[in-house]
Amino acid sequence: MERVEHRACFGGWQDVYRHESSTLNCTMQFAVYLPPQAASEKLPVLYWLSGLTCTEQNFITKAGAQRYAAEHGVVLVAPDTSPRGPDVSDADAYDLGCGAGFYVNATRAPWERHYRMYDYVTRELPALVEEHFPVTEVRAISGHSMGGHGALVAALSNPGRYRSVSAFSPIVAPSQVPWGEKAFTAYLGENREAWRAFDSVELMKTAQERLPLLIDQGDADEFLDSQLKPQLLQATAEAVQHPLTLRMQPGYDHSYYFIASFIGEHVAYHARALKA
Amino acid sequence: MERVEHRACFGGWQDVYRHESSTLNCTMQFAVYLPPQAASEKLPVLYWLSGLTCTEQNFITKAGAQRYAAEHGVVLVAPDTSPRGPDVSDADAYDLGCGAGFYVNATRAPWERHYRMYDYVTRELPALVEEHFPVTEVRAISGHSMGGHGALVAALSNPGRYRSVSAFSPIVAPSQVPWGEKAFTAYLGENREAWRAFDSVELMKTAQERLPLLIDQGDADEFLDSQLKPQLLQATAEAVQHPLTLRMQPGYDHSYYFIASFIGEHVAYHARALKA
Repeated sequence: MERVEHRACFGGWQDVYRHESSTLNCTMQFAVYLPPQAASEKLPVLYWLSGLTCTEQNFITKAGAQRYAAEHGVVLVAPDTSPRGPDVSDADAYDLGCGAGFYVNATRAPWERHYRMYDYVTRELPALVEEHFPVTEVRAISGHSMGGHGALVAALSNPGRYRSVSAFSPIVAPSQVPWGEKAFTAYLGENREAWRAFDSVELMKTAQERLPLLIDQGDADEFLDSQLKPQLLQATAEAVQHPLTLRMQPGYDHSYYFIASFIGEHVAYHARALKA
Repeated sequence: MERVEHRACFGGWQDVYRHESSTLNCTMQFAVYLPPQAASEKLPVLYWLSGLTCTEQNFITKAGAQRYAAEHGVVLVAPDTSPRGPDVSDADAYDLGCGAGFYVNATRAPWERHYRMYDYVTRELPALVEEHFPVTEVRAISGHSMGGHGALVAALSNPGRYRSVSAFSPIVAPSQVPWGEKAFTAYLGENREAWRAFDSVELMKTAQERLPLLIDQGDADEFLDSQLKPQLLQATAEAVQHPLTLRMQPGYDHSYYFIASFIGEHVAYHARALKA
């Protein structure tokens, strides 16, 4: 593991590391924010999963989350959104291939050798972080859009693994929207039964743990009606009595200006759960 | 004037406008953050001048200043760093031509027709902003690196025009460092007498107004010893008794992580002066 960026930020350090991922069979980068408290104690970790086209850079340069992580004593970890590299299959599209891993374990050619982002973000990356950084095994997870989908799937599929989960503008029902149908057909094949393991609406129906979900969604989001459809998750949550707080934020769109405006509340929400 | 971006942000609006600049003889973009208070009252303005290679986008996407502007009720205005467009002269360099206007009024070919950023940021842009937005004529100015130089020059040259001024990692003595010598030779010619009007160390010697300067400088800044040299301004300030607070911030570099870490203190500093 090699440190490739190291920058002072809000009294702590915003770092970026490069490592060889055995899950993804390629070299990956991830970002770690170590708040000032990390110099003297082990801290819990909030994982952040980014959306389509992002790398590990978007969240750390645009969200302004470090201020709140420093305030609450939480480590932030932000991985890339897909495998990368010269031998990694790609597609000539922003919503498939590199930058669009969708946090699944692909089973279909040419994707199955590298596109195993679900295992990477829920297993390999936490193990790596917990081995090398001053952190506890107390975890929370959040994300945006495709990464909001990833965060909800990770939490709903792994009872006990995360103390809290939240999402901004998540794709809650990938099986029912164009982004998800395209990616899942490519990565998982035509059989929709295989899609259920990566679809929050489906996973919620059989979730073993009723971990509360916090979701912020802008009502001026350009993808709200076509790709995000939070009402599908809300209806399921009501049907199965899963605790869900869905906040429709008036005027906000799909951009990082939206994330920046509410990330402070999300970090505080996670900090309360992480330190409870 | 045309609005080209409009995004909800911390309860207000982060907008970008395009207009025809009569000073620069080209189409320009600038960013305006209108905090929530702007819906019901006229507010003072903090101008932000960015550094080499930047556009109006860098500050608004990376600094996280909107949170503090919303907290204090201050409008933020961030122009581009040079004229732009197909008929604007450029150089095959990051530190001359487009993205590197250096906030001077060029007098030498091929630059003199468009490169008049000093007049643009101190005259045309404030007049435009004060005509079209819910703002008062109470102004402050700040900036980073080349833009820190621009902010200091604007304040030192225009007594009474700004209530307060601050800078991050400014080029304080462009006449004495490689970035400034290259740009000033191109834009202003070989005669160094003409450079004095755009050099903070020189301007401070004869300043008519002793407006206090607040400067934050990272001590791990990769340009500190070669291009920035704040000690030159500090020595002059002591000699002429100009009030200067120079804060050396341990561990911080030249990046937006540094700006983000301290922009809250700068916005609060300006807000106190703007509302005094």
